[in-house]
Amino acid sequence: MWLQRDITLRPRGRGFHLVTGEVAEALPEVGDLRAGLLHLFIRHTSASLTLNENASPDVRADFEAFFDDAVREDAPYWTHTMEGPDDMPAHVKASLLGPSLSLPIASGRLALGTWQGIYLCEHRDRGGARSLLATVLGEAG
Amino acid sequence: MWLQRDITLRPRGRGFHLVTGEVAEALPEVGDLRAGLLHLFIRHTSASLTLNENASPDVRADFEAFFDDAVREDAPYWTHTMEGPDDMPAHVKASLLGPSLSLPIASGRLALGTWQGIYLCEHRDRGGARSLLATVLGEAG
Amino acid sequence: MWLQRDITLRPRGRGFHLVTGEVAEALPEVGDLRAGLLHLFIRHTSASLTLNENASPDVRADFEAFFDDAVREDAPYWTHTMEGPDDMPAHVKASLLGPSLSLPIASGRLALGTWQGIYLCEHRDRGGARSLLATVLGEAG
Repeated sequence: MWLQRDITLRPRGRGFHLVTGEVAEALPEVGDLRAGLLHLFIRHTSASLTLNENASPDVRADFEAFFDDAVREDAPYWTHTMEGPDDMPAHVKASLLGPSLSLPIASGRLALGTWQGIYLCEHRDRGGARSLLATVLGEAG
Repeated sequence: MWLQRDITLRPRGRGFHLVTGEVAEALPEVGDLRAGLLHLFIRHTSASLTLNENASPDVRADFEAFFDDAVREDAPYWTHTMEGPDDMPAHVKASLLGPSLSLPIASGRLALGTWQGIYLCEHRDRGGARSLLATVLGEAG
Repeated sequence: MWLQRDITLRPRGRGFHLVTGEVAEALPEVGDLRAGLLHLFIRHTSASLTLNENASPDVRADFEAFFDDAVREDAPYWTHTMEGPDDMPAHVKASLLGPSLSLPIASGRLALGTWQGIYLCEHRDRGGARSLLATVLGEAG
């Protein structure tokens, strides 16, 4: 089975946002698969996807603190500055975290670990709605 | 063909560990595929997987040195500190390196480059055993 | 459908290089797929692949500046130094960015966002030609 679906994530502020439930609800067909993969792809270069701790909001706040410190808006070497001070750091953060997640599907469910959740990583101050393309492939149950 | 298998990696100390052989031995069915992919997924948020140099143990030691310096336990901005000083850095390192690897299978073998090996990246001092879910998909030879 | 093909990228200088066109031209069969995935894999440990902004060369120059600053050749903790000062930083950069990209194919085309392009990230001063293995899988249109 191959299925593709566009998922639009509503605008969110700069930071790390848990979107596991939103993504799972958009893909009920995952329930039909015995074994498979979900490929989630973000069609932007200033936002990214990662998987991390799904319980504590302070983990997500600390992610923002870390990445803001590691990829500084005031770094002296930026030359691509026309689109604002958050733009070039957003591009770098997006590549450090990556534009896609490949997640296993087993027995009709995303086979995530107990503590794993999907983060939308919004690196712009005002990134707007974000467009994902989900590809589901696998073997029916 | 679709195959899924749990692989448990025994507890290892904090650092970067070469596990290519262990993973390959757990998946003899790779030998049946003319072309395919192996998706390896770690079901944790404080350990990760990467691919890097498989010959020199000093490369793996230098990885540990780099990541300990880049994601500091004593950074002033951590708020999620209840689970110990190695916890929040472990979450960030896990996302920098990522929870999965997708590796090509060609002519019944993992088609890695000569120098490429699979690293288990253990970011906790005492992470315990780590659980992988391997998904093999492809076309029989 | 499963297809695998070796793609050799000519030697390029250290830095970030846009190779979307070169990769797409090497894989005309993508045009036959209604829905699928392209898995691009670099068979090296001192070069990597990422997806980022495809319009402004200054973005790619800023990537090089950021990574050279974040993974310093003169860091005091490197022990693996026999292969030159650019070697160990190249290994770390390769893992930060990753050895593969999984890209969705929809209606016979790579379903990238408007601004997304494929970067070859060359982390060595003289890395030579780089070998990719492309795996295309999907459902014919």
